[in-house]
Amino acid sequence: EKRKFQVSLSPIVSFFQTNKDSIKKIIHSIKVGSVLVLVSLVKFVDSFCKQVGDDSAMWAIMTVVVIFEFHAGATLGKGFNRGIGTVLGGGLGCIAAILGGQVGGIGKPFIVGVSLFISGGAATYSRLIPNIKKRYDYGVMIFILTFNLVSVSGLREENVMEIARDRLLMIVLGFAICICTSLFFFPIWASDEIHDSMVSKFEDLASSIEGFTGEYFRLAGDKENQPVHPVASFRSCLSMLSSKAKDESLVNFAKWEPWHGKFGLFNPWEKYQKIGEVLRELAATILSLKGSLDSSEEPLQALRESIKEPCEAAGSSLAWTLRELGESIGKMRRCQPELFIAPKLRLVRQRLGQIMSEKLDTAEELSIACFVLSLMRVAEK
Amino acid sequence: EKRKFQVSLSPIVSFFQTNKDSIKKIIHSIKVGSVLVLVSLVKFVDSFCKQVGDDSAMWAIMTVVVIFEFHAGATLGKGFNRGIGTVLGGGLGCIAAILGGQVGGIGKPFIVGVSLFISGGAATYSRLIPNIKKRYDYGVMIFILTFNLVSVSGLREENVMEIARDRLLMIVLGFAICICTSLFFFPIWASDEIHDSMVSKFEDLASSIEGFTGEYFRLAGDKENQPVHPVASFRSCLSMLSSKAKDESLVNFAKWEPWHGKFGLFNPWEKYQKIGEVLRELAATILSLKGSLDSSEEPLQALRESIKEPCEAAGSSLAWTLRELGESIGKMRRCQPELFIAPKLRLVRQRLGQIMSEKLDTAEELSIACFVLSLMRVAEK
Repeated sequence: EKRKFQVSLSPIVSFFQTNKDSIKKIIHSIKVGSVLVLVSLVKFVDSFCKQVGDDSAMWAIMTVVVIFEFHAGATLGKGFNRGIGTVLGGGLGCIAAILGGQVGGIGKPFIVGVSLFISGGAATYSRLIPNIKKRYDYGVMIFILTFNLVSVSGLREENVMEIARDRLLMIVLGFAICICTSLFFFPIWASDEIHDSMVSKFEDLASSIEGFTGEYFRLAGDKENQPVHPVASFRSCLSMLSSKAKDESLVNFAKWEPWHGKFGLFNPWEKYQKIGEVLRELAATILSLKGSLDSSEEPLQALRESIKEPCEAAGSSLAWTLRELGESIGKMRRCQPELFIAPKLRLVRQRLGQIMSEKLDTAEELSIACFVLSLMRVAEK
Repeated sequence: EKRKFQVSLSPIVSFFQTNKDSIKKIIHSIKVGSVLVLVSLVKFVDSFCKQVGDDSAMWAIMTVVVIFEFHAGATLGKGFNRGIGTVLGGGLGCIAAILGGQVGGIGKPFIVGVSLFISGGAATYSRLIPNIKKRYDYGVMIFILTFNLVSVSGLREENVMEIARDRLLMIVLGFAICICTSLFFFPIWASDEIHDSMVSKFEDLASSIEGFTGEYFRLAGDKENQPVHPVASFRSCLSMLSSKAKDESLVNFAKWEPWHGKFGLFNPWEKYQKIGEVLRELAATILSLKGSLDSSEEPLQALRESIKEPCEAAGSSLAWTLRELGESIGKMRRCQPELFIAPKLRLVRQRLGQIMSEKLDTAEELSIACFVLSLMRVAEK
């Protein structure tokens, strides 16, 4: 009986293990669906009570739809932006409307129009500044929107303050529902994702170095046996080269995320970006080694044979170093590069220097040089 | 008199020429400001006429704020997304509301709730699929929003159709104003930007190859004279490596842009992405040449001297090829690689093959191999 149950369960379990990514996506979709129902309930109840203004509950729905992002950090960041943007825009909009009201007559729309033009233009310009765009783009957009709505409504109605208060209340409500769902039910942390991706990058680089040295020295005899293996490792290097934008946005989200799991409140997320930069440079180096694979000509075969052993040793010790570093980042323990890794690298460098008369060495030595740099950075951490 | 005028004008002219980028930004900001005033005027007039629904003019403002992007293509794409999302979401929302109304009683909120949950979850899941996210992310978001608002409003009020019609009208109005301003007054085309950036990339690569060969062979005597020059060229290679995300979004916008200037309606924008990929690989190769600069040791000096001439020739002819290709893309004329460029490259390759015993060659030869690839692609165009 029990065994049968296990058998029927095992495909589901294995599905969950292999498709971790799509499971996350499904959970996220279910979360969004339930939050939408919840927030519509607010509007439904509200329409009976008629306590809050007429269309204010709409703002709660809008907030939920716009704010709820895949990563918890992104949701927090957007919510924060929306809050600040609404408060600032609403406040300034009120001032503009009141100012216009005091002047009265034909001056009223004139003043509002001028203030709209100036604030809209200035805010749009600030959205084009890279640093503001990166973190506060959404907040500035909401600022423009709220400022416009409030100041233009002020032309007509007198209860500007009330409208502003009601909408703010609804936005806070939507924000609170989002944050609770996003943080407390199966949270999807951007910090976990960037941490894992960093560790797997180290692993990828290590295996592609191994794959390369293997391929390079295997060419002598059995070239036709398994010729397609290193292509995969080069492809992983290529995809690493173009990972900058994704890393950047993840770090951006991770900065918003509060203390959780193994990460403290002030985890040095900028370090992750720097390490990513060094790894990308290293990936470029490994990628360019492909050139020496392509240009394998017969006269060099003997020379290649003669340097086979030290180069293979160097390759495997580089791979070892990378794995070691990746693991130390993965477990978040401080590694002592001065004690273990640096002398080993120095040894490798010496041995390579001895046989310095072949092209492979330079490239490999460069990767070591890159590597010492990255070591220093990791050591700082 | 006239000369004085010219003198007083010249700083402004030179400012305009050097800061072309920020001029564009300022123009964009002014455009946004004026469109906002214009659209608020609509609301202002509307509040006197009271023809359209109560708060519908708000939707015109919202559309303008959200849609108006820096590039004309981005504005078009977002507007299109918003239109489709609104129509689809509104239509399905109406159906859900009517269905709920026919059941009546306690079944009404139940049916609406279930439909909200299903549509919200499904749409959110589709937003996480990369291909949809790239082009239709915004449209799906608007779909969720509209569906919710319409179906929930339907719980209470009977004039769902009217609300939907009014809002759609206002959104179309906002869209039309945006498109007119964005396309007819000082348009900022994404296609121009990606075209120019592609041409300047060729130029950058050419000059960094020249810079590298110059630096490599200058080392012999006057190492201490001007040692910082090639750093800049390497930096341009580095920034090129991480340009993938930007290129992708520009191509995405450019696809939305209509026929204008020198670009036809069906310009092969995917080709630009492929060429960019090849250029990035070439940049990685050039970057890895830095290794041979760093590891300049004395024993190699004589050897280096002996290969100086052919390598310099190869470098300059590679640079010439790159410039030629860049120019032919810039002027959009079909270049005949079989006639002019391919034989020249073959010659370079032969000469390099003759002195094949030094590390530089391999790397440079790789760049040629890369290059032949890129040639083929350009030739296709």
